Amino acid sequence: MPHIDLPEGLPGILGPMHFRPETAKPLNDLAEVLLRGDSTLTRGERELIAAHVSKLNDCHFCHTSHATFAALQLDEGWDTVDAVIMDLDGAPISDKLRALLRIAGAVQQGGLNVTSAMIEAARAEGATDVEIHDTVLIAAAFCMYNRYVDGLGTWAPPEREDYAESGRMIVDHGYAASTPPLPES
Amino acid sequence: MPHIDLPEGLPGILGPMHFRPETAKPLNDLAEVLLRGDSTLTRGERELIAAHVSKLNDCHFCHTSHATFAALQLDEGWDTVDAVIMDLDGAPISDKLRALLRIAGAVQQGGLNVTSAMIEAARAEGATDVEIHDTVLIAAAFCMYNRYVDGLGTWAPPEREDYAESGRMIVDHGYAASTPPLPES
Repeated sequence: MPHIDLPEGLPGILGPMHFRPETAKPLNDLAEVLLRGDSTLTRGERELIAAHVSKLNDCHFCHTSHATFAALQLDEGWDTVDAVIMDLDGAPISDKLRALLRIAGAVQQGGLNVTSAMIEAARAEGATDVEIHDTVLIAAAFCMYNRYVDGLGTWAPPEREDYAESGRMIVDHGYAASTPPLPES
Repeated sequence: MPHIDLPEGLPGILGPMHFRPETAKPLNDLAEVLLRGDSTLTRGERELIAAHVSKLNDCHFCHTSHATFAALQLDEGWDTVDAVIMDLDGAPISDKLRALLRIAGAVQQGGLNVTSAMIEAARAEGATDVEIHDTVLIAAAFCMYNRYVDGLGTWAPPEREDYAESGRMIVDHGYAASTPPLPES
């Protein structure tokens, strides 16, 4: 049972977004530019950062959604996603992405946990300032989305398979396109 | 020293926002609708929620900024802000706002920490579903802004007095107006 009276039948963040389209717009615009806008990180890599942080925050809806979006856009699909969930240190990803995921994990604990050593490690693997910036902001943003989804007590489909259709929609059309229309004033 | 090469002379979130105007726009648009848009909570009350969460997250820049914005827009100014910082239970604020600040504190810890009892307590004091929604999202959003500011190692002026001028700008012109222009493409 959600904590407030949300539109029925809409899982996770979709209920609050339809309840309050005025805030849904900047929330979707932010996800669009961070996860799908021009970047030297692939869309799959950025969704993996989002999924990783959502897992650390125990947000089932966001984790399973963004793990699905990552799997659909990474060459090795769920194999890469599962490897990162199981063991970040040993997962078959680039050392640059591994260093960025470690920064994201520090941000999840709190911004002051990011150390110069973590930044230097990412830079030594070729990470640029924009990639570091975007990693920090993706991780920070999912500390928001996760709390929004769970703080309102929304419901979430249990299985990965339940997220396949929404995954295809996001991959094909993006976040901004899913903002509900604003009420007529 | 910030972790990445940010424009000099800009404190806190302003450096990263000028570094990456593409993400600054939805970040400011979100703050504008949440903290200054139409609401049955006053702007001062909403800034107080933002300041409270930023204090819990140990983010000096965001806490002092939003405490200043709250003080400028609350009838009793800094007296109310300081009372809430010192002792939420005994502060001279409405019981509705006190219940909403407790929900915000739970969100800061993690979305799953919000209980039905906290929601019922707020509702018993007259809080509406939109007010509860906005409180949860303000708290969640400041878990993002705080991590963004500190995760990039930005600098912050030490004293309250240092925030008076930016406070007057925000009170008079708002957040959306402070988004830097996008680079020409």
